[in-house]
Amino acid sequence: MPYIELPPNLPGIAGPIAQYPETGGPLNALAEALLRGPSSLTPGERETIAAYVSSRNACRFCAETHSAVARHLLGDDAEIVDQVRAGGDRAPVDPKLKALLAIADKVRDDGRNVTADDVARARAAGADDKAVHDTVLIAAAFCMFNRYVDGLATWAPVEPEAYVDHGKTLAETGYLRSSR
Amino acid sequence: MPYIELPPNLPGIAGPIAQYPETGGPLNALAEALLRGPSSLTPGERETIAAYVSSRNACRFCAETHSAVARHLLGDDAEIVDQVRAGGDRAPVDPKLKALLAIADKVRDDGRNVTADDVARARAAGADDKAVHDTVLIAAAFCMFNRYVDGLATWAPVEPEAYVDHGKTLAETGYLRSSR
Repeated sequence: MPYIELPPNLPGIAGPIAQYPETGGPLNALAEALLRGPSSLTPGERETIAAYVSSRNACRFCAETHSAVARHLLGDDAEIVDQVRAGGDRAPVDPKLKALLAIADKVRDDGRNVTADDVARARAAGADDKAVHDTVLIAAAFCMFNRYVDGLATWAPVEPEAYVDHGKTLAETGYLRSSR
Repeated sequence: MPYIELPPNLPGIAGPIAQYPETGGPLNALAEALLRGPSSLTPGERETIAAYVSSRNACRFCAETHSAVARHLLGDDAEIVDQVRAGGDRAPVDPKLKALLAIADKVRDDGRNVTADDVARARAAGADDKAVHDTVLIAAAFCMFNRYVDGLATWAPVEPEAYVDHGKTLAETGYLRSSR
């Protein structure tokens, strides 16, 4: 049971976002700009990074939600999501995403872990400034979203299948028109 | 030197917020709502929690900035900031703030660490739902801000004195009208 009163039937971050819209608005606006706005990374790549960080933080709601979104966006490449969740930068993905996943996992632990060599590796594989920026901020932002969801003990469906429809909706309409 | 190109002479988070306004806008809006908006916690209490979490995360820019803001807001009680940074929930502060600092430090490590007993202790000391919510989200949000600042290797003045004027400005005008 959540530690504070939240609207019933809204899982995960959707509850506190609805209950406290003054902070919920900026949180949704951040997610939209970061995961859907202009970037050299595709929305599918960005959602995969979000799912990976959330999975590493063991936040079920965020990991399953953003995995479902990423699978929908990636289409025929949907299997990448589970490969990344299982193997991180050892997953069979392209060198650019590998390098960015390595940066994301370092940020997840502590921003100070990222080295100039990590960034150089990502640049050599084709990452530009925006890709590095977005990777760092996605990893950082999900360290927030994960803690917000878990620190309030919000509820989350256990079965991954429960996230498919909502993932499709978020993939198709983004974060400004629907609750997460 | 920062890992990506940022405007010169803007320390800490001010650089990436100016360089990437599409995410900078929601980040500033979140800080304003969370640290200055309506709450059962004073802005001084909220900035103290922000400074504490940032200090525990060893993020110099955020710790010194929000310590300076909190000292300005707390006035005659400014010494609380350094007592909290040194001792956390063992600092000589009132029982409500003690209990909330304990929750904040648990969220900082992992949201799943927070227990129903932690929240009950805060409630017994006078914390309401909004105080618990804001504490969890402040701790979570600074886990993001700290990682954003450090993951990009932004620069930060070393001397605490360098933060006094900017802290006063942020204390007096908030986060929507000035860069952090």
